[in-house]
Amino acid sequence: MTITDTPVNNGVNVAALLGARDALTAAPEAAQFTWRASCTWRNGTHSHSTVDGFTGLGAEQKHRTTYEYDVDHPECFASEDNGATPVEYVLVGLAGCLTAGVAAVAQLREIQLRSVTATIEGGMNILGILGADPDVRNGFEDVTVRFAIDADASREEIEALIAQSQKRSAVYDIVTNPTKVLVDLA
Amino acid sequence: MTITDTPVNNGVNVAALLGARDALTAAPEAAQFTWRASCTWRNGTHSHSTVDGFTGLGAEQKHRTTYEYDVDHPECFASEDNGATPVEYVLVGLAGCLTAGVAAVAQLREIQLRSVTATIEGGMNILGILGADPDVRNGFEDVTVRFAIDADASREEIEALIAQSQKRSAVYDIVTNPTKVLVDLA
Repeated sequence: MTITDTPVNNGVNVAALLGARDALTAAPEAAQFTWRASCTWRNGTHSHSTVDGFTGLGAEQKHRTTYEYDVDHPECFASEDNGATPVEYVLVGLAGCLTAGVAAVAQLREIQLRSVTATIEGGMNILGILGADPDVRNGFEDVTVRFAIDADASREEIEALIAQSQKRSAVYDIVTNPTKVLVDLA
Repeated sequence: MTITDTPVNNGVNVAALLGARDALTAAPEAAQFTWRASCTWRNGTHSHSTVDGFTGLGAEQKHRTTYEYDVDHPECFASEDNGATPVEYVLVGLAGCLTAGVAAVAQLREIQLRSVTATIEGGMNILGILGADPDVRNGFEDVTVRFAIDADASREEIEALIAQSQKRSAVYDIVTNPTKVLVDLA
């Protein structure tokens, strides 16, 4: 145990998360979540999506407010650039997931964070999405996430935070492993 | 060929896309893109990301404006719900990608769209991210996307639009197939 004058506070309620883990292990049906979004086509490649609720803990849950997102292709694709591209949304999700994980693990390990930034890049050969080369995939060829972290910890401890965040990250799993997607017409 | 009084217009510049396909097939180095986002940790599980530019067509490209996104966990995870969750960002990206594809393919096939909506859901057992059950994955168990499309076309033709959009979708590929992700510390 470490005795400190100022307790570590990264703003993550670790006691609640550990309590949830125990409670959901005992009542696993409440651990089944369904996340949702609704998308409406505007014009061209521009769409507008809303995120307002989800199902989990055995009930319907509401976000504090409805989140709204415009998605589009950029002007160099002959589109109007009314929002970030679909693949940039995936990068935002992945960076946010790993960053939340770093904060949660740091709290659990009693490491005070001062700043965390991440730059994320996804390489893509657009001959794939253009249908110009059947050997080129549509998605990212690879993704790199580079963290810069200022914290009361050694470099080794900070690297271990990042590693544990990856291990428990939903979006890292979604990007690195296959998921079945069913697309149909109502 | 179909002769119509009012030409089909879904707002997608198909001529430019076909031109780009020819031009990039002849100059494949310009087809190499790098998409980016920058993420800054705020507090707890809350982060703020910006998307403002990318590399492609052999040059540095700028979005019309800087897009900004707050990512957080919800109140039922003992967080402050300052934005959609990371996994909801992935759903927004996937819905937007498939919807843009439907519009582009409809334009190419001279099908006039009147409306397109999609509801997207991802099932997740949160015993995975909580580290409570090693047999449960962190990410989505499965994703379903249900389109409702009003267009001047048969149901069969509309189903074919959706199928072709899936075939060329970057985010559909990212979610359904594995991508290598490297995470490191600067």
